[in-house]
Amino acid sequence: MEQATPTLEELHQLLRMSETINMEIFYWWCIALMVVIHAGFLSYEIGASRLKNALTAGVKNILAFAFIVPTFFFFGWWIYNGFATGIVPNLEGAAASLPWSGSMGPNIKDNATGIFWAAFALFAATTASIMSGALIERTRMSAFIILAIILGSGVWILGAAWSWHPAGWLTTEWGFHDVGAAGCVHTIAGFFTLGVLINVGARIGRFNADGSANEIVGHSMPMSVIGLMLVIVGFFGFLGGCIIYNIGGQWTNIYGQPTTLSAFAFNTLMGFAGGLIGAYLTTREPFWMMSGGLIGIISVAPGLDVYYPPLAYVIGMGVAAAAPLVQKFLVKRGIDDAVGAFAVHGFGGFAGIVISGIFIAGYPNMGEGVPPVNFLGQAGGAVVLALLGFIPGYLISLLLKKLGVLRVPAHAEVRGLDLVEVPAKAYPEWALTGASITVTSAPVASEVAVGAAKPA
Amino acid sequence: MEQATPTLEELHQLLRMSETINMEIFYWWCIALMVVIHAGFLSYEIGASRLKNALTAGVKNILAFAFIVPTFFFFGWWIYNGFATGIVPNLEGAAASLPWSGSMGPNIKDNATGIFWAAFALFAATTASIMSGALIERTRMSAFIILAIILGSGVWILGAAWSWHPAGWLTTEWGFHDVGAAGCVHTIAGFFTLGVLINVGARIGRFNADGSANEIVGHSMPMSVIGLMLVIVGFFGFLGGCIIYNIGGQWTNIYGQPTTLSAFAFNTLMGFAGGLIGAYLTTREPFWMMSGGLIGIISVAPGLDVYYPPLAYVIGMGVAAAAPLVQKFLVKRGIDDAVGAFAVHGFGGFAGIVISGIFIAGYPNMGEGVPPVNFLGQAGGAVVLALLGFIPGYLISLLLKKLGVLRVPAHAEVRGLDLVEVPAKAYPEWALTGASITVTSAPVASEVAVGAAKPA
Amino acid sequence: MEQATPTLEELHQLLRMSETINMEIFYWWCIALMVVIHAGFLSYEIGASRLKNALTAGVKNILAFAFIVPTFFFFGWWIYNGFATGIVPNLEGAAASLPWSGSMGPNIKDNATGIFWAAFALFAATTASIMSGALIERTRMSAFIILAIILGSGVWILGAAWSWHPAGWLTTEWGFHDVGAAGCVHTIAGFFTLGVLINVGARIGRFNADGSANEIVGHSMPMSVIGLMLVIVGFFGFLGGCIIYNIGGQWTNIYGQPTTLSAFAFNTLMGFAGGLIGAYLTTREPFWMMSGGLIGIISVAPGLDVYYPPLAYVIGMGVAAAAPLVQKFLVKRGIDDAVGAFAVHGFGGFAGIVISGIFIAGYPNMGEGVPPVNFLGQAGGAVVLALLGFIPGYLISLLLKKLGVLRVPAHAEVRGLDLVEVPAKAYPEWALTGASITVTSAPVASEVAVGAAKPA
Repeated sequence: MEQATPTLEELHQLLRMSETINMEIFYWWCIALMVVIHAGFLSYEIGASRLKNALTAGVKNILAFAFIVPTFFFFGWWIYNGFATGIVPNLEGAAASLPWSGSMGPNIKDNATGIFWAAFALFAATTASIMSGALIERTRMSAFIILAIILGSGVWILGAAWSWHPAGWLTTEWGFHDVGAAGCVHTIAGFFTLGVLINVGARIGRFNADGSANEIVGHSMPMSVIGLMLVIVGFFGFLGGCIIYNIGGQWTNIYGQPTTLSAFAFNTLMGFAGGLIGAYLTTREPFWMMSGGLIGIISVAPGLDVYYPPLAYVIGMGVAAAAPLVQKFLVKRGIDDAVGAFAVHGFGGFAGIVISGIFIAGYPNMGEGVPPVNFLGQAGGAVVLALLGFIPGYLISLLLKKLGVLRVPAHAEVRGLDLVEVPAKAYPEWALTGASITVTSAPVASEVAVGAAKPA
Repeated sequence: MEQATPTLEELHQLLRMSETINMEIFYWWCIALMVVIHAGFLSYEIGASRLKNALTAGVKNILAFAFIVPTFFFFGWWIYNGFATGIVPNLEGAAASLPWSGSMGPNIKDNATGIFWAAFALFAATTASIMSGALIERTRMSAFIILAIILGSGVWILGAAWSWHPAGWLTTEWGFHDVGAAGCVHTIAGFFTLGVLINVGARIGRFNADGSANEIVGHSMPMSVIGLMLVIVGFFGFLGGCIIYNIGGQWTNIYGQPTTLSAFAFNTLMGFAGGLIGAYLTTREPFWMMSGGLIGIISVAPGLDVYYPPLAYVIGMGVAAAAPLVQKFLVKRGIDDAVGAFAVHGFGGFAGIVISGIFIAGYPNMGEGVPPVNFLGQAGGAVVLALLGFIPGYLISLLLKKLGVLRVPAHAEVRGLDLVEVPAKAYPEWALTGASITVTSAPVASEVAVGAAKPA
Repeated sequence: MEQATPTLEELHQLLRMSETINMEIFYWWCIALMVVIHAGFLSYEIGASRLKNALTAGVKNILAFAFIVPTFFFFGWWIYNGFATGIVPNLEGAAASLPWSGSMGPNIKDNATGIFWAAFALFAATTASIMSGALIERTRMSAFIILAIILGSGVWILGAAWSWHPAGWLTTEWGFHDVGAAGCVHTIAGFFTLGVLINVGARIGRFNADGSANEIVGHSMPMSVIGLMLVIVGFFGFLGGCIIYNIGGQWTNIYGQPTTLSAFAFNTLMGFAGGLIGAYLTTREPFWMMSGGLIGIISVAPGLDVYYPPLAYVIGMGVAAAAPLVQKFLVKRGIDDAVGAFAVHGFGGFAGIVISGIFIAGYPNMGEGVPPVNFLGQAGGAVVLALLGFIPGYLISLLLKKLGVLRVPAHAEVRGLDLVEVPAKAYPEWALTGASITVTSAPVASEVAVGAAKPA
């Protein structure tokens, strides 16, 4: 193991190389754990489907991943690097992110681009998967893929360029601070999904003619709950991807302010635990409890680097306790979010950002002339990102609806999508109850009733 | 990437900073993988419940995590740092662990406290989860939460302060050596659980009026078995949390003695493999095989740093082969441990420590005046930790029993806890056999018979 | 935290020690994530079995792991280090890998052997698990264990010594390049399995007397699909184990050529995504889609370090689209591979290597006199490794067949292996359809028909 003693400068370069390798390793494991998010979402989403749609839900979830990766290679990464200042691309700054750039492939002089691209691609796939569960059991596969690509390789990453980038205009102009991506990932995904839900409409049988709602529940709550715990595992990869390993010094957040993984560890666990309790208080059931754990992490994500941990517990608890009420409100409005994706990600992210405007206002941003964190900046940023999600989600799904390609035909929906989409059976040997056909607690209404209704 | 060449001292500080970051990363991944333990336990425990109790088992498991995290923040971590010498707290030494200390939150001068606290909090949650499975299907939720907090944020961490801490009195006085936490985590959790099991009593139908036993089996053995393999994955996080990353040098175990991750890798895999085989030899079924894999790791945990790997295989095999017999012995005594938690963790940990007293006796402990590892110290330490677990588990559950709040009413137990605890259904579309109501192989006895009985 | 300033030489040694620790950590996490492969395979293989065989499939899968670890300790690791040049062992070079060597156990002077051994042992267990699924529902447990040990601790590691080792003769003589182990792991495992399948024969009912085929499908496709996504998670551990952390410099591949984790990240994700799409195009169902994701990674594994990422996408897509046709071809030939293991691993690995001979021909190998990568070397290497797998798989299973110990008796197979092998029930409370007894779409043929048949 002995070698000639290097000079001071050589040794410095050796240390920098060592740190480069360690940075690459860190994000490699972030990527691997973000794949766990996909194993978790797959389990969760299949479990949340009725038997007649279970495999179709799996296919949809898997296809989202399959389409996000190449599209994020061809244009998603370029968007992140080109649009920090708004909607006019910085062509020069983003040139290295063009798919034919020497950085966008194996390059032994570049230990960074591939690993960062891959981590962001997993963020993108996660964003698309957030929408996926909400739309099960009636959305057409091709329409979903189009929406997933627009959300995962377009909209969210534009939001990331604006709000989760050292030069993003929301930060440089308004002092926006959201270290854990509650805005660009969760708020955008949630509001985009809300826009789509309005157009795709409720599943047949979800609402009665008088506007009252029936419960439609998935075929395996254990599968969903275990899947959600895997999503929590994957969150450690996701949040690891939100902190910057610096050659030669302390961690920084995405905006360049010093922080520590220790801070992230404190607040992630406390937010998670608070969220579990909050949702338990208002629902007492495990699907919402685990969703509450997610909400807890999402709602403290903006201030992971600065919250006092018991405050993170309280924020997580409060937002998670409120989220099931948001879901009930949507049901009252005739909106059928099959897994509560808007309540968890849209509301959880939005509320978390607004709340952070109260508790971390005054925290300085790095850089000359950048305003400190302030309530209006946080709340305004949350609104900008919510709109950035909602508007394209609504408009594109409206277009798809007008074209008649957003939703499967009613007869296919009633018989179950697996019959038409998937040449295989989920559980060929099990006996089923009539419940697989009629899951409603009241006469089936084939039309979607919108308006005042008793909460499910 | 070029910078001015630093001085030798500056470069030394840069290296130390680099190592600090790497330490923090290492434990971050330990934490993430310990969350996998919880995904695994959730799957395992739901699978081990009958259909009528499946969701309640999940809720219980999730709530344990939710309550351990904040209580471990408020007092668990302080106990670890304050009670190494016995039962008189070292108030000065533990001051930095008080919840209002500057270390107990984001602090860019402290890259250690948060990550260590979080790793220990996951150990705590694991300890509580060990008890969780044993008590399913009849324990009251509120009583379980109280017991989980006492075990997870109180008892085990006091045991850790005594036996798994460089200044713990069991080590400094008796030479106790238990690098993989077989004592403070597994032995304590197992014996605490045993104490509770005596008071909570068997599930209705588990024993007949004549004392003979019926088998009560969970509704999905595949779910349990796959969950246990995830627990094994998580064990790599757990055992990683048992080795100390040192700035400027070789790994040490928790007592400050040099060791390597390589040693841990050798003996973890060999103990695991031996345990699988051992349990196969005496049971031939996958639930006990996977439990045997756990037992294998637990039983070699005390000497992970020093065993010759084939010895670890043999120890794991022997202890795992014996554990199902321990479970049968408990059944004969009328004790209904629903998942064999005592046999796996209590017996496995205890036996592993005692056996280590034979094979690693004479191994020197670091520090002036600290006795070397010796059989009496190991066996005595195992007894101390077993009592430290058993006594509070027994007494507190006895108190809860006297107060009439330990166990659910018999009619709720017979109908199934999901009906009363959880406003949701686990599997609404599946057809069930009568087996969900009467799982016994003999006439149902509605009273719990305790005493001599034929093994199941 | 302050210390005396070290000398330049001392500081260099401190840096080297830091890197040694980081190397050990990197492979520790590779090992942990490769255990995820086993959780995934367990889920996948149980799900792919009919209910009557579900637990036996789990036991078989677990036992493979349990037997590979010790046999890989006693002779597998020695084979890797002794047979790089062919079939005459290098006794001197492999002496440190003998089980009684000081390196083969805890040794505070050696932070490498244990962690490398463990990573390779997990590769070995993965190799054996590849075969495992193909043989479910009719292979005798003892025969499977023998075959698993020969494959996992013998054949593949000999192939690794030849083709995935800096001194392996296939590289030094022919210029063979296969950084991601498509050959020694996947091609060998697939062709070994094919050899066994020919002798073990099809499951009763798989083929009709006229040679036409019936579908036999597993009892839970969701369980299989989720398991496969966990295998993908584990692949990041597997591929991490394919890159060499170097003290003092850039990553190298197993042959000593410089590369980056970034390159691996680019091509792993792109190959995976392409494979998902490819299999979707030809099958439209989630089991093959997830298998296609595996095929995508396997097929780009030879050139992970050099492919342009969109090329990896295309290769993955093409090979994965073709694999279901390979499975159909086997069915036509009367070969009953229950999970498509040959199509995924044997065909996927073989095709990936041959294709790499087109796209990376001319890439220089390090070292004097070592030929550059070339088409004949790649294709020839693929053939050598395919034969190295096929011949022992075929001959040993033929011997076991002649001895009458390869396959369970027909009556046990018809009634289900769980009845004879496992004293437990998988799902005691569920109602089953007749499908658990008669899964064929035509009259059951109790004899295995081999020959031309319509594809299933």
